[in-house]
Amino acid sequence: MASFFEDNADLRWYFTRGLDWDALVRVTEHVPLEGPYAPKDPDAPKTTAEAKELFGDIARAIGELAGNTIAPHAAEIDRAGVIFENGEARFPPRLEAVSRAVSQMELHGLCLPRELGGMNAPMALYYLTSEVLARADVSVMAHHGFHGGMALAMLLFSMREGSTTLDAAGRITKTRFEKEIREIVAGEAWGCMDITEPDAGSDMAKLRARGVLGSDGVWRVTGQKIFITSGHGKYHFVIARTETVGAERSAATDDPMAGLQGLSMFLVPTYEDLPDGTRRRIVSLDRVEEKLGHHASVTAALSFDDAPAHLIGERGQGFEYMLLLMNGARVGVGFECIGLCEASIRLAEGYARERTSMGKTIDRHEMIADYLDEMRTDVRGLRALAAYATFHEEMGQKLDLRRRVREQTGQSVDTELARTIRRHRKKARRATPLLKYLAAEKAVEMARRCIQIHGGVGYTTEYGAEKLLRDALVMPIYEGTSQIQSLMAMKDTLGAVMKNPRGFVQRSADARVRALSSRDALERRVARLQIAADDATRLLIVRTAGDKLRSVRDQPIGAWVSSLSKNWNPKRDFAFAMLHAERLTRILCDVMIAEVLLEQRATDAARGEILEAWLERAEPRCRFLLDEIQTRGQRVLDQLASDETATARAAE
Amino acid sequence: MASFFEDNADLRWYFTRGLDWDALVRVTEHVPLEGPYAPKDPDAPKTTAEAKELFGDIARAIGELAGNTIAPHAAEIDRAGVIFENGEARFPPRLEAVSRAVSQMELHGLCLPRELGGMNAPMALYYLTSEVLARADVSVMAHHGFHGGMALAMLLFSMREGSTTLDAAGRITKTRFEKEIREIVAGEAWGCMDITEPDAGSDMAKLRARGVLGSDGVWRVTGQKIFITSGHGKYHFVIARTETVGAERSAATDDPMAGLQGLSMFLVPTYEDLPDGTRRRIVSLDRVEEKLGHHASVTAALSFDDAPAHLIGERGQGFEYMLLLMNGARVGVGFECIGLCEASIRLAEGYARERTSMGKTIDRHEMIADYLDEMRTDVRGLRALAAYATFHEEMGQKLDLRRRVREQTGQSVDTELARTIRRHRKKARRATPLLKYLAAEKAVEMARRCIQIHGGVGYTTEYGAEKLLRDALVMPIYEGTSQIQSLMAMKDTLGAVMKNPRGFVQRSADARVRALSSRDALERRVARLQIAADDATRLLIVRTAGDKLRSVRDQPIGAWVSSLSKNWNPKRDFAFAMLHAERLTRILCDVMIAEVLLEQRATDAARGEILEAWLERAEPRCRFLLDEIQTRGQRVLDQLASDETATARAAE
Repeated sequence: MASFFEDNADLRWYFTRGLDWDALVRVTEHVPLEGPYAPKDPDAPKTTAEAKELFGDIARAIGELAGNTIAPHAAEIDRAGVIFENGEARFPPRLEAVSRAVSQMELHGLCLPRELGGMNAPMALYYLTSEVLARADVSVMAHHGFHGGMALAMLLFSMREGSTTLDAAGRITKTRFEKEIREIVAGEAWGCMDITEPDAGSDMAKLRARGVLGSDGVWRVTGQKIFITSGHGKYHFVIARTETVGAERSAATDDPMAGLQGLSMFLVPTYEDLPDGTRRRIVSLDRVEEKLGHHASVTAALSFDDAPAHLIGERGQGFEYMLLLMNGARVGVGFECIGLCEASIRLAEGYARERTSMGKTIDRHEMIADYLDEMRTDVRGLRALAAYATFHEEMGQKLDLRRRVREQTGQSVDTELARTIRRHRKKARRATPLLKYLAAEKAVEMARRCIQIHGGVGYTTEYGAEKLLRDALVMPIYEGTSQIQSLMAMKDTLGAVMKNPRGFVQRSADARVRALSSRDALERRVARLQIAADDATRLLIVRTAGDKLRSVRDQPIGAWVSSLSKNWNPKRDFAFAMLHAERLTRILCDVMIAEVLLEQRATDAARGEILEAWLERAEPRCRFLLDEIQTRGQRVLDQLASDETATARAAE
Repeated sequence: MASFFEDNADLRWYFTRGLDWDALVRVTEHVPLEGPYAPKDPDAPKTTAEAKELFGDIARAIGELAGNTIAPHAAEIDRAGVIFENGEARFPPRLEAVSRAVSQMELHGLCLPRELGGMNAPMALYYLTSEVLARADVSVMAHHGFHGGMALAMLLFSMREGSTTLDAAGRITKTRFEKEIREIVAGEAWGCMDITEPDAGSDMAKLRARGVLGSDGVWRVTGQKIFITSGHGKYHFVIARTETVGAERSAATDDPMAGLQGLSMFLVPTYEDLPDGTRRRIVSLDRVEEKLGHHASVTAALSFDDAPAHLIGERGQGFEYMLLLMNGARVGVGFECIGLCEASIRLAEGYARERTSMGKTIDRHEMIADYLDEMRTDVRGLRALAAYATFHEEMGQKLDLRRRVREQTGQSVDTELARTIRRHRKKARRATPLLKYLAAEKAVEMARRCIQIHGGVGYTTEYGAEKLLRDALVMPIYEGTSQIQSLMAMKDTLGAVMKNPRGFVQRSADARVRALSSRDALERRVARLQIAADDATRLLIVRTAGDKLRSVRDQPIGAWVSSLSKNWNPKRDFAFAMLHAERLTRILCDVMIAEVLLEQRATDAARGEILEAWLERAEPRCRFLLDEIQTRGQRVLDQLASDETATARAAE
């Protein structure tokens, strides 16, 4: 019996010491964060320790499912792909059997409330175990995620818009999409998220699908959506334009983001149930993409032609509702990538331990040993960041729902709760693009390295290494490309400093003090890494603000914010920071992982070894990235500017 | 008409100013390097300028073949693959038609002597135009290369062993494999090089195929060969073991390389011609690998069972004969990679110029502009290195043949010629592993970036981006992995210093002087880069020599060589340099390309711009790599040592 959980000591650590399960159980069981744990629901676990034990058991079972039921068939599933005929996509028998096995474990309800047929486990359990499933096969894991994930989205959206009612124990008594949620939990349906369109990938302001309210009071959606993962399901969350006001403002103000305000969120059922008990397809499945990898996952092109739709929330809130899921979805991809990294490492290590060359197995060759060491260090660093991100995302999300329920039911909300929510959200928001960025890039890098360590046989379809790379290559593209993650991280970082330059100066000074005077060598090294990040940030701000900063530098720092935000041309002024966004992001990843590992060491001294290995590689890398930011970029910007001038002249 | 030559200004530069065609024509037409050009062969070009013009015309024609006849079918060829049935591999109709078109241009004889049906063009013309073919489809180009390349190998081997006679004009009057060469030039056959075996990839000393001399005076080869590119052809160069002495020495001295001395080179025909005019397969084609890419190229597993074979040269010279071709083959892969890089750049640029996001085409987004700029800079740097490598390889090879012919015919050889040969060979040997390493790594990197720039559509099979990556991934594996290239470059570099420490110290001092006092800013920057390479080399030597150096540092530097070479344990002493071999190699690549571009600028000031762009990225990168060598590695080495101790203990 191969268990993809039991054999992974670093992952198991998060089930024993690495994660605050007590807090997660409390927010999930509607129990105050402080004081005795006394859930009102009689079906809730009796203690948080009991819950934690249960979660370990579930993870173990999923580890066995992954190792014994999914992984042995991954190659066959990859070869067979999915079947698309007569406008319907379906799975070939092996994939169908594997999907059924996942359903039969009742995993789709893992994080759904018990009163809706679920197990009411924390989301963290779903995420951590999704790594295990992804290690077996990422496309099986991805499709699985569109069950429970979409059911949770239905519940979350309904709670957000106020169409869910709870009893005093926090149990759901009524929720808008109960039928759909139960269907999904039972494994009879799944949903998907339909955002991308042929001419709008990263650029959501360009979305053109339309939602129109008929005189019969029914919304109808028309448009095309592409690259929809698991888009052959029964329920579609569709983002469509309902308002023109944003688009007008967009044209008038030259602000490409303004168009986002005209988007609304809809739930669109794929089929119409006919009186004779049969059903008719409304949303048409035009095409299933032929992809490099992820062959067990349907990537659909869909068209909607006056498809009846349920508006979620209010008109124009579509982008806002999407954002509710976005962080979680990106954290999910982070774990998916980690699973793939883990698979690459295991496959590479296994081969390197067996293959001999020049009188020894190749894992004893210094260069290969260094590759493998880096892969092991990287995956541990990524897992630390992912665990951190999922914890704060879940805490922030669930405490915020708790706050909303209190508000909706007229209860008071203390300021402490609001502060706690803000703190969790800030951490989750900081970690998420870094996780999505780095995990995806590392998934590609490790899979490629796995091929390389295999040599010639890695290039054949026989050993499975090339499949890992094919599967990995979509990671830096979907759920926001690596470039989009970088831009987000850069803008958040620079924006925070511009909003609160004093705080930045203070934090930088603190880091300098720690770098010099901390008695703990590792803490000093982490502080030095933070200084590199601050230096990079400061440099980008100075270059970004350009002339403006020169005009303010004699003013007190507190006055910068107002001076800087005047006469701002984001297109021109941000050019230097945009060019270096990925480098800044890479530094931020290195720093944040070092910080999280340092925190972990406070609870478990053994984690210091991982931190040391991380720092050894992160330190020269951060110096390099800072060096590049300091010395490069102007030539390319000048070239862009001169091309623009030439284009403008030609147009005259 | 799409011409893959005309549209490439940087490549065209090598046909006008970038390459010393005069020297190449002279060595190819058997004319002295100095003095008037007066070929004795009446069919030779009348002037070297006329020859150069002809080469340009040929390149243009190949550019059109690539752009119009190959590239439009690359996707179809990739999808269809090759057919393997009844123990024979063959091409589907489209690939067959494309191959026929290449043959009909009579390209197989491009570099073969006119008296054997060829055009007697320099090898450089073959290499530079192979880039153009590779840009259209690397597997078509690779298969094409196994025609003329193998015919040339037959001629080269025969000249080397002395079974070719020439007339006074340098024309061939008799050569051992004339029938086979003519067959290949006519497009009726091709050959392949059979080295790799199931348990011996990079480690040739472990080869087990055997050659046995029968009592009938016929050699017969028995064994298995795998990963044989174009291995479905008519002629096989096979490396097989004929002597046990090397193997014994290998076991006795613990020197894994000793086994190489027992290898011999054979030409093994695939078929036996039967009296009735039919033929019988002797070499059996067991399998055609299913690979990630290179679908138009057959990668064969072969077995030999007492197959009649022609010994080439003498027993035990197999490795030496293989080395004759190795450099050239690696230069060839370099150009293949450059073609693939060029294809990735063009595809990415084309898409980025069309695709709009956030109000402008994505090539105007700073991050993408920076990616594209790096790709353009990299391919120019690689092409400079490749042109340099091919020039010196050809000059060295052909002048050495000239020297051998003189010796074999009892003519005197002046010391100046010997010196010139050594100079060319040294340069070719230095450039080749760097070219093979960097071009292959960049081919993978650029193809991946091309996918990423495409976003979602890059992951589908529709746009061709994913095919480029699939094709690229074999480049760092075949013809010596990137790791093997790195080890070679590291050992050559460190070995040269150990042999001549005084010369190293002198060169380093010169670089320091130039870095400070040259009036040319670019020359100063190149010198600083050389200092970084020297620093890295010095550090690796100090760490490698370890205690030994400490014992010699008070001795005069000239005495180091004897002190250092005593009591040497390469396994243990080289560990640190082995761990960092790839980093050193990367620095050496950066430095060498900078040097070549600086040389080019001496003949054409416009090349200074390319050098500047190269230095801008190379400088921080070299600082980083040096930083890593300075600060990293010991932990992994300690781990390896402690694992070894544990293993040894467990074995007791």
